[in-house]
Amino acid sequence: MANTVKIRVPGTTANCGPGFDAVGIACTIYNDLELTLSDQGGISLEVAGEGAGAIPADASNVVVKAIQMVLTKTGYPANGIKLNMVNNIPLARGLGSSAAAIVGGLVAANELTGNRLTKEEILDMATAIEGHPDNVAPAIFGGITVSIMDSGTAKYLRFLPPKNFSMVAVIPEFNLSTKAARKVLPDSVPFADAVFNVSRTALLIGALCTGELKLLLHALEDRLHQPYREQLIPGMAQVLAAARQAGALGAALSGAGPCLLAFTADNSDEIGQAMVKAFNIHKVDARYQLLQIDTQGAIIV
Amino acid sequence: MANTVKIRVPGTTANCGPGFDAVGIACTIYNDLELTLSDQGGISLEVAGEGAGAIPADASNVVVKAIQMVLTKTGYPANGIKLNMVNNIPLARGLGSSAAAIVGGLVAANELTGNRLTKEEILDMATAIEGHPDNVAPAIFGGITVSIMDSGTAKYLRFLPPKNFSMVAVIPEFNLSTKAARKVLPDSVPFADAVFNVSRTALLIGALCTGELKLLLHALEDRLHQPYREQLIPGMAQVLAAARQAGALGAALSGAGPCLLAFTADNSDEIGQAMVKAFNIHKVDARYQLLQIDTQGAIIV
Repeated sequence: MANTVKIRVPGTTANCGPGFDAVGIACTIYNDLELTLSDQGGISLEVAGEGAGAIPADASNVVVKAIQMVLTKTGYPANGIKLNMVNNIPLARGLGSSAAAIVGGLVAANELTGNRLTKEEILDMATAIEGHPDNVAPAIFGGITVSIMDSGTAKYLRFLPPKNFSMVAVIPEFNLSTKAARKVLPDSVPFADAVFNVSRTALLIGALCTGELKLLLHALEDRLHQPYREQLIPGMAQVLAAARQAGALGAALSGAGPCLLAFTADNSDEIGQAMVKAFNIHKVDARYQLLQIDTQGAIIV
Repeated sequence: MANTVKIRVPGTTANCGPGFDAVGIACTIYNDLELTLSDQGGISLEVAGEGAGAIPADASNVVVKAIQMVLTKTGYPANGIKLNMVNNIPLARGLGSSAAAIVGGLVAANELTGNRLTKEEILDMATAIEGHPDNVAPAIFGGITVSIMDSGTAKYLRFLPPKNFSMVAVIPEFNLSTKAARKVLPDSVPFADAVFNVSRTALLIGALCTGELKLLLHALEDRLHQPYREQLIPGMAQVLAAARQAGALGAALSGAGPCLLAFTADNSDEIGQAMVKAFNIHKVDARYQLLQIDTQGAIIV
């Protein structure tokens, strides 16, 4: 018995300025994952592209963890896991590589075990592994998602904006673990800062839902996490300012960083170049990549 | 020289659960205001309905203040102000009576002085008098608004939901000044509470923009102001719970209260009755009123 499926999962950007832990967007950057389940035992893993040589080929791997979770839940009699991954999403940069790995594993294993899980169950399982739903929701559903946790269950809304925009992801040449990026956050915040983020989040979702993209400049402002994370990313404020000066609709930290993301209507290349240059001034090597919204989420290819 | 205009201004509900100081909805409850400007000097004020006998007829009145602000700004040569008001919006209950008074005065005076102010200028002037834009924005523009303050200037987004809903306002028989309701709010909040409200606000605006109204149940949850204001409104938690139990989409404090508001798809009367009953159990007299979204904002009648 051997059974193979190939899944493509998008990278994702989360937070989007004020929308900490809630807002996510699926992006046109993908990891491909080929899973073969068998009764031959053992775990084997081949990785090409991002993370090649750096990803553990055992049960500590989140893809393997996700697959085994589905096997346990469905009682499917397989003990052999063979994975072949081609990764384009850079690791630990704030573009949802971990969420893509988890969702890829869950969706692939679900496909091979008879499609017994709904997308909502996959969301809950992915959230359980990842710890929060903001990246896994768009990786599953595509588009823009808002997700909340309600007593251990994720609730979500998924929508597409009526007016299209592009994104420029500027990827610096260093990693930042989500764990480290969470460690710098405070236990409490001024009431005014909480209210500030509430208003900007309302404006962000309103602007994205209605297509009033000129509002993004203010709608991407944040006081809850970005000010604390600046110390971890040399030149962050200047790179975000460079994006706005070069004509971006707005700019923000992507997820927990260190990737920075500009929302653009045009001149995306110029904006990307200006952002890379601003990073370089702070002695940080960086490259940029133009992205669109992925509308499909994880699919079988 | 005498010059008269009649303006109708809607009441408004603000905050809407998590959207503190940012989200507002114009409602189908109105104050009518007839303004006559003259060169005869003096201020005279007649009020029928809500606030009759309780509203000062001098420069301390916010309507007068608003009118004088327009006269000063436009240099219009009038020193006589005659006002005739018919008020349906209850005073100091959280339905935007103060915002309606201010907007009514500004719009009426603007109309009589040659329409030299844009709606955006009226928004800034109203915000300057009121202190925050969340009630004045929907009173001016109608519909649902998101507003933020950016270095003294209000920015806003206005939209109508694609799927209609009703609102049940339950109005207890006591006043609560916004000042008193703000005094109980803390200077700082747990980080987790700020993040909680960010996610609920994102879901609220997403739900209202897309018409996914079943999400309102969670989208109206709040940890920034309602828990602190419960002490000022006997039975508040029980009235909100009664609304949900009777089938409301969700329920929240209206503005700074004490009015409580349920969002409903049907059975609005039953929901209103259940909420009044829950207030009565806590020895609070109350009545309910069915409201829709006002789509026009302040208009000349």
